Amino acid sequence: MKSTRASFGINRRVLLTTAATLSVLPALAVFKRAQAQTGPLQSWNDGPAKQAILDFVRATTDPNSPHFVRPEERIATFDQDGTLWVEHPMYSQMIYCIDRVPELAARKPELKHVEPFKTVLSGDRQAMARFTQQDLEKIIVATLTGMTTDAFDAEVKAWLATAKDPRWKRPFTDLTYQPMQEAMRYLRASGYKTFIVTGFGQDFVRVYSQQIYGIPPEQVIGSALAVKFAYAKDGKPILIKEPKLMLNDDYAGKPEGIHLMIGRRPVAAFGNSTGDQQMLEYTKAGDGLRLSMIVLHDDAEREYAYGPAEGLPDTKVGTFTQALYDEAKKDGWTVISMKNDWKRVFAFE
Amino acid sequence: MKSTRASFGINRRVLLTTAATLSVLPALAVFKRAQAQTGPLQSWNDGPAKQAILDFVRATTDPNSPHFVRPEERIATFDQDGTLWVEHPMYSQMIYCIDRVPELAARKPELKHVEPFKTVLSGDRQAMARFTQQDLEKIIVATLTGMTTDAFDAEVKAWLATAKDPRWKRPFTDLTYQPMQEAMRYLRASGYKTFIVTGFGQDFVRVYSQQIYGIPPEQVIGSALAVKFAYAKDGKPILIKEPKLMLNDDYAGKPEGIHLMIGRRPVAAFGNSTGDQQMLEYTKAGDGLRLSMIVLHDDAEREYAYGPAEGLPDTKVGTFTQALYDEAKKDGWTVISMKNDWKRVFAFE
Repeated sequence: MKSTRASFGINRRVLLTTAATLSVLPALAVFKRAQAQTGPLQSWNDGPAKQAILDFVRATTDPNSPHFVRPEERIATFDQDGTLWVEHPMYSQMIYCIDRVPELAARKPELKHVEPFKTVLSGDRQAMARFTQQDLEKIIVATLTGMTTDAFDAEVKAWLATAKDPRWKRPFTDLTYQPMQEAMRYLRASGYKTFIVTGFGQDFVRVYSQQIYGIPPEQVIGSALAVKFAYAKDGKPILIKEPKLMLNDDYAGKPEGIHLMIGRRPVAAFGNSTGDQQMLEYTKAGDGLRLSMIVLHDDAEREYAYGPAEGLPDTKVGTFTQALYDEAKKDGWTVISMKNDWKRVFAFE
Repeated sequence: MKSTRASFGINRRVLLTTAATLSVLPALAVFKRAQAQTGPLQSWNDGPAKQAILDFVRATTDPNSPHFVRPEERIATFDQDGTLWVEHPMYSQMIYCIDRVPELAARKPELKHVEPFKTVLSGDRQAMARFTQQDLEKIIVATLTGMTTDAFDAEVKAWLATAKDPRWKRPFTDLTYQPMQEAMRYLRASGYKTFIVTGFGQDFVRVYSQQIYGIPPEQVIGSALAVKFAYAKDGKPILIKEPKLMLNDDYAGKPEGIHLMIGRRPVAAFGNSTGDQQMLEYTKAGDGLRLSMIVLHDDAEREYAYGPAEGLPDTKVGTFTQALYDEAKKDGWTVISMKNDWKRVFAFE
C-alpha cells in the first residue's frame, strides 16, 4: 500500500519533529497512552487503515490545519452491504423479499403457479441460486410494492425481529462490523454527518438505521421506488409504494443519488465493491483533503473471503475486482483488510 | 417534459402579472421598527398564530407533556415561495431563468432567431406575457440543464449577488419574512430539524439555503432534474444537469418528496397555497399533536394581497383558494394573517 501520510499530504515526520520541540510532550505521551486504552477506534489494530482515519479526522477538524473543513461541510458516506454489515452469501433485503413470498402467495394464490414464485415456494435453494436478474426483480417488485409505507415499515420490523442469519444464528442487525460502527461514531463525535448510501432499498434500511447505526432515516440514501400520495377510504392521506424505480443508487447512481439527497460532495466515503467505485472517485476528486476507504473481505475465518484481490476468488456478491484494487492503490484510497486491520469483527465476539 | 411546468409551479399568468407590475411600482412604505421585546417570536403580534406556535412547541418538547415528541422525530417542513420569502409577482427562479437567456444566446447564437428566446432577448414584456407553457419549459430546460452542478452553483451565486427585486430594489435574499425566520430559529432551538419543501428547483434553493435560512442543502427538498455522472476531459468525475425530471415536488409531490428525502412524516408544516395542501394534510393526519400553518397574503401595503380568502382577488401565483381556506378552518390548520399576525415583514424594515 502507498503511504497513507503521503496520500493525505501530511508529512508525519514534520509533525513528529514539531511535537518533539513542544514542552507539552510528556503530557502528549500520557494522552497517547490513554488513547490506546480508551481511544475512538478500539476494535482496529494499529496500522495504515486506522492511522488513515485518525490522520484524516485530525487534519480536517483542527482549525489550524491547512486541511480544516468547516463543520457544515463534514459529510461522510458509507455503503451498507459488505461495508457496514455482512452481505454474504446473500443481501439481507433479498432474503427479506424471498421470505415474504409465502404470505404474498397466500393473498394472491395465482402466484403459486408462476415463476419465479413457484420455485421460491418449493424451497429448492439450488434452483433459486440460478435465478436471473429478471427473476429477482419480479420478486422485489412483488414483495416491496402495493402496500402503504406504514404497512411496509411494520412488515420489515416484524421480519427483523425474528429472521436470523444462517451462519451466526443471530438477527441480521447483530451482524454489523464493530470497527465501522466505531469509525462512524468517531466521525460523528468529530462533527461529521454520517450518511448511508446503499444500492439496496432506502425504505428498508431506514426502518432500522437509527437503532442500528445511529443514523436517522433522512440520512439514508438508497435505491428508491416511487410512492404515490392517495386518500384511504377513511379520507386519511397515505403513501403507496409503487413499482416504479426513482433512483438506482448503485455505481454511477451513487454520486447521482448523493447529489439528489445531500446536494454536495462527501469529504469521506467508505465502500467495498465496484458498486461504490464512482462514489469513492467522486469523493476523492473534491478539493482539499479527502478520504476514500474500501473494505477488503479477506477473512474467511471470522467472516468471508471473496474478491480477486490477493488472489481470492471472485463472487457475484460485493465484487471487489482487481481493477478496483489497482485503482485504489493508484488513487490513494485506503484498503481496509478485514483480516489485518480489524481486531474484532462483531460486537458479540 | 410535459410535467416540467407543474414541477416548477410556472403558469403563463405569472409573466402576465409580472409585466403589469414591473412598470408601475408602488412606493416603498416606511414603517416604524417594532419595539424591542423579549421572547422567541418578536416580529409576531400576540394572537392565535403566535400562540399556536408557542403552544405546539411547549406541548411537543416538554417531557411531561402527553404530546411529547422525541427529539429525533421533530421534523418541521416549510414551503419556500410565499411562505419564507416573496413570490409575487413572479418566482425568483423564473426571473433567474429569463435573466440567463442573453448569456445562453451568446454561447448559442442560433437561439437568437428561435422563440421563445427571441422574444426574451427583445425585452418585450407584453410579448413575454403571452408565452405558452411550452415556451416557459423551453426556457427552463435551456437555462437549467447541460452544465455541471458546480457551474450551475457558480451561476446562481453570481446572479444572486447582483439581481434585485423590482419593488424593493434589494437582493431577493433580503426578501425573506422575518417572522418565519424567527419561527424556524425557535423550532430549531427546540430540537426541531427544519426542512424546505419547495415546488421550485432544489438545486437553486440549495445554493443559498444555509446562508439565508440556516438550512443546509441536504435539508432542502424541491423539484429535481436528474444529474448524470461522467468524467471530464481531465478524467475528473463530474455531474451534468440533465433535462429529465426526477421529482415533481408540488401538490401530491410534496408528501412524496418528503418520503423520498426524509422518510418520515413531519410533525409541523408551513405553506401558503394549494401546492402545499397535501403536505399540510399529510402532516396533520399523523398521530399525536401536529401543526399545520398556512400564510395568507392579505397585506397589500407591506407586501401583497392575493387569494380569494377574505374577499381578495385570486391570482395564479401562490393560489390560496376559498376551498383551501375552508379546509384549513375545518381541519384545524392555523391561518397566518400577514397583516394581523406579523408586526414586521422584513428584517430591513
